[in-house]
Amino acid sequence: MKPFTSIRAQSVAAQGEQRLIAGIRRWLGRASPAAPFGIGDDCAVLPPSKRHQLVTTDPVIYGQHFDASVPARAVGAKLLKRNLSDIAAMGGRPVAAVVSLALGPNTSVRWLEQFYRGLAACALRHRVKIVGGDITQGPAGFFGAFLTLHGESTGRRVVARRGAREGDLIYVTGTLGGSLLGHHHQFTPRLAEGAWLAGRPEVRAMMDVSDGLAKDLGSLTPDRLAPALQAATIPISPAARRRAKATKRSPLHHALCDGEDYELLLVVRRGASAFEAVWRKRFPELKLSRLGQFVRAGRLPAGSLRLSGYHGYEHLR
Amino acid sequence: MKPFTSIRAQSVAAQGEQRLIAGIRRWLGRASPAAPFGIGDDCAVLPPSKRHQLVTTDPVIYGQHFDASVPARAVGAKLLKRNLSDIAAMGGRPVAAVVSLALGPNTSVRWLEQFYRGLAACALRHRVKIVGGDITQGPAGFFGAFLTLHGESTGRRVVARRGAREGDLIYVTGTLGGSLLGHHHQFTPRLAEGAWLAGRPEVRAMMDVSDGLAKDLGSLTPDRLAPALQAATIPISPAARRRAKATKRSPLHHALCDGEDYELLLVVRRGASAFEAVWRKRFPELKLSRLGQFVRAGRLPAGSLRLSGYHGYEHLR
Repeated sequence: MKPFTSIRAQSVAAQGEQRLIAGIRRWLGRASPAAPFGIGDDCAVLPPSKRHQLVTTDPVIYGQHFDASVPARAVGAKLLKRNLSDIAAMGGRPVAAVVSLALGPNTSVRWLEQFYRGLAACALRHRVKIVGGDITQGPAGFFGAFLTLHGESTGRRVVARRGAREGDLIYVTGTLGGSLLGHHHQFTPRLAEGAWLAGRPEVRAMMDVSDGLAKDLGSLTPDRLAPALQAATIPISPAARRRAKATKRSPLHHALCDGEDYELLLVVRRGASAFEAVWRKRFPELKLSRLGQFVRAGRLPAGSLRLSGYHGYEHLR
Repeated sequence: MKPFTSIRAQSVAAQGEQRLIAGIRRWLGRASPAAPFGIGDDCAVLPPSKRHQLVTTDPVIYGQHFDASVPARAVGAKLLKRNLSDIAAMGGRPVAAVVSLALGPNTSVRWLEQFYRGLAACALRHRVKIVGGDITQGPAGFFGAFLTLHGESTGRRVVARRGAREGDLIYVTGTLGGSLLGHHHQFTPRLAEGAWLAGRPEVRAMMDVSDGLAKDLGSLTPDRLAPALQAATIPISPAARRRAKATKRSPLHHALCDGEDYELLLVVRRGASAFEAVWRKRFPELKLSRLGQFVRAGRLPAGSLRLSGYHGYEHLR
């Protein structure tokens, strides 16, 4: 279903701002506390915290992050989950979010209700409070929701992207590729896994895979090092194989380039021999693949995957 | 100048994502710390704080909050100042911000540079760090920047909108109306004033005037009370009088309805006799007007302003 309606009586423009805000508070329900700790004051107020604070922001925009084939509730959940995945990638715990909407006057009130109900259900599941926001009119046919999520560290440290050293091992959770077939809105943010990994001293760096492994791995790679991966170790998803049949590209290409995997990509100190066994015991149902290791740039072993031939998702083209 | 260009080589689409992000970091300069405390990781990391945390979000969208007559640098500054005004209205101090952009592929790189330089200059002036963000493509001719600002309380309390009681006095800083003639992007957020007012126990409630006094005053008004104002006490700006000549409406109408005044509207306990004198000593250059007081609904004194005949800015029409 599209987010828009051609029947003016069913549009946000017909409803008006005051009734729309009242509706949003009703649709959010228990996910939205009362002012000043939530919607309705100049700022939301969050209690003091002794932990490191985490902040991330990601939107969903019609035509970019979803289309009419994605149910409105799933769009609302995806908006939060994209941001949850970033908190997971630092090993954090989510706390509260604000949502800024830019929407065409022809946006459907029914669609918007389902969007907010999906957002609220996801927020309750992850104990996130929706504490504020803004609504502004955009051009007809435009729908964008911009969420900023606040979290905090779960233990003593947050895991950054920097930190890899020569010889360190590269791992990824789950399988990669073909997210367009449904995974891009049906994924589960790896919050429990990220928090557990942040507590393991052998984990040196971490990020989530959102633009495709081929592109994202560059963010973990220090100057003068290069990732030495074997093609056979890349965990190709069944969806990547299905996509490959339609596009005539290789399943490997889709696994490396599609983006929106929302899996964790991590760097582990070489010689941390217990790591894989401890992972399997703690998360027996989630696959963890060792992809290779960081070597000195220019010294890639024969048979290594040439990532420069693959391009991840580019946001402006 | 419009934010868009018809020359593809000067557009963000020709530049591409990686170079654009590098440019943004350069344009932000000292306003943007390095990862993980700033741009470049999955989340920005802020240090722990013993104070109450404040969060607010407001965008600037082309055609809604600015047009081609506003310089790009002023648009960047306005984006931050709108949010600073919300922090001021709770008596807080700003700390850090994230910015999510949705922009058409025809957005001009030169315009965007000036936008970010204006944002950076404003951020440095107010000691705000720009710690993260996101860029997503939007439709051609669309430019929206969505900022979320984090702050903290300056003293023991934050001042909410609720709190007014019968007999309390209503004040406003500065003058009102006609913001379209320039004030909407040239205003100064009332941060020093807000922080000082939050430290005064006789101040019971506060907000900033963004949608016009006639509408915003409703947010300070408790159930069963009504604001009794005298028309003569409304501080009408020179710009409201100039606007009135062009629109054939009254200057009072513009002062009550125009919006984007970004002045502080506050409620003071009746009998706080020293308040006005102490204000004048602390802020001798900023006018403070006593507009009236809260009375029981249905008991408005004769001659009171009938606010129901005035409508503030409506965001969806």
